[in-house]
Amino acid sequence: MSKNIYIIGVGLIGGSFAIELKKLFPDSNLIGIDNSKQNLISAKRLKIIDTSGTVNNIINPFIILLAIPVKSIIEILPNVLNKVNPNTIVLDFGSTKNSICKSVIKHKNRSNFIAAHPIAGTEFSGPSAAHHGLFKNKNIIICDREKTNDEVIDKAIKIFSKMKMKVTYMNSISHDKHIAYVSHLSHLSSFMLGKTVMDEEENEKNIFDMAGSGFESTVRLAKSSPKMWTDIFDDNKVNVLKSLSDYIYNLELIKNLIEKSEFKELELQLKKTNYIKKILKGINYEE
Amino acid sequence: MSKNIYIIGVGLIGGSFAIELKKLFPDSNLIGIDNSKQNLISAKRLKIIDTSGTVNNIINPFIILLAIPVKSIIEILPNVLNKVNPNTIVLDFGSTKNSICKSVIKHKNRSNFIAAHPIAGTEFSGPSAAHHGLFKNKNIIICDREKTNDEVIDKAIKIFSKMKMKVTYMNSISHDKHIAYVSHLSHLSSFMLGKTVMDEEENEKNIFDMAGSGFESTVRLAKSSPKMWTDIFDDNKVNVLKSLSDYIYNLELIKNLIEKSEFKELELQLKKTNYIKKILKGINYEE
Repeated sequence: MSKNIYIIGVGLIGGSFAIELKKLFPDSNLIGIDNSKQNLISAKRLKIIDTSGTVNNIINPFIILLAIPVKSIIEILPNVLNKVNPNTIVLDFGSTKNSICKSVIKHKNRSNFIAAHPIAGTEFSGPSAAHHGLFKNKNIIICDREKTNDEVIDKAIKIFSKMKMKVTYMNSISHDKHIAYVSHLSHLSSFMLGKTVMDEEENEKNIFDMAGSGFESTVRLAKSSPKMWTDIFDDNKVNVLKSLSDYIYNLELIKNLIEKSEFKELELQLKKTNYIKKILKGINYEE
Repeated sequence: MSKNIYIIGVGLIGGSFAIELKKLFPDSNLIGIDNSKQNLISAKRLKIIDTSGTVNNIINPFIILLAIPVKSIIEILPNVLNKVNPNTIVLDFGSTKNSICKSVIKHKNRSNFIAAHPIAGTEFSGPSAAHHGLFKNKNIIICDREKTNDEVIDKAIKIFSKMKMKVTYMNSISHDKHIAYVSHLSHLSSFMLGKTVMDEEENEKNIFDMAGSGFESTVRLAKSSPKMWTDIFDDNKVNVLKSLSDYIYNLELIKNLIEKSEFKELELQLKKTNYIKKILKGINYEE
């Protein structure tokens, strides 16, 4: 009998993971579930999924992936966990992890569930953005690993390894705290940079003529999905506010140095920050 | 007689421009001038320049390019302008333009001088970073055009066009005001993002494991030269402070929305900023 793989959310992340799963399990039956009929039609036309389905009709699942916003994951994960058999792998790829883990802490099938966060993505979205290789050489963080059955974890790790992902472990509270700095703050800084420049430059020609690759780079994330990121800022509110406060504090600090013409100290601060070069060199970014 | 071309500052920008000039004028004599002996040795070894010289020994110059920090341009530009013949093109590629233009406003040879800003560069520096093609398809902004002799401008524009650069005109005060938003602010936001994340993440492993291409993109400019950028923030202090204040204002605004859980309004603000997609599409960024 062919394996049933359910992909809940057939956008960039779910669609790209479906493409990899089909390569690993060519005989599997890939079933897409999505609130958007348009997404399901596109995903089928793009041969990302074989057919479409619903959560209530999940039958004999081998893998169920939830690649939808965190709020929606919390809403349907308990119901999804009701549909598993003892060997089913239930995965979520939500951007925050603590509220999801808390929502199923007492579920009888909690041990079938892996709370994961693959550090992969682009500023594009939807099934048409899905592509082979998105996860290659990327980290995937598994949270609260001890809550999952060893056999389920082992099977999932084999799959991640075949996709050339690197697995690391964290508890879900730490995950959300650190990801606020390393990911969520980047998005806020970029969105607000875009806003500040557009507010000032009513004449777009100035931006066209004067913007270099540096502006493009820092403002790239301002192209991201407003809905998705609003949900993330909502879900990770406390940590996001902390990172944003720290960021504003540092901007005020540097503003103060410029105001007082303390340029020696300013240069020293920028020099220290140059150390980021060394850190970035250690990271593998090909997409 | 071969043409004498003087490149003052043989780093990324000066070196890359020298490479293009040598292609256009293969018989020219390219003379490098630089405070750093090491840079001159590298530039000669890399065949970016033919020989080295000094400002005092400038003789019968065809082109003199100043590709050094703004402060140093202001220091030596009057002396450089004393060395010209009636047809010499004197160019500066400083990142701010008003203080430079003001410094030579009454010089008897002002009309030989073109205050220009090519919108090109990378986060790397020095002669080893110089390369062919850096200026291709990039904008170059000429400031206070009316102060330059028409023949000098026409010759320079022909050279820029052969390098496939697009020429636009601005007055130097507007240039400095707009560039603060479109370029200088990006650098400050990126430097401070790097600082904020490094302050928080004492354990670099968290950055390694959790940082995606989004973080890399927004923090890329934090690798830039602290000395060069401190000088720019110093020279363009008033405009930089204005852009920085606006940026902090917007970050406070969004912080306030998150604190009060006004997520509908937050999403609306992010949606408006998405318009940057359309603007960025109009810009040609290949490097």
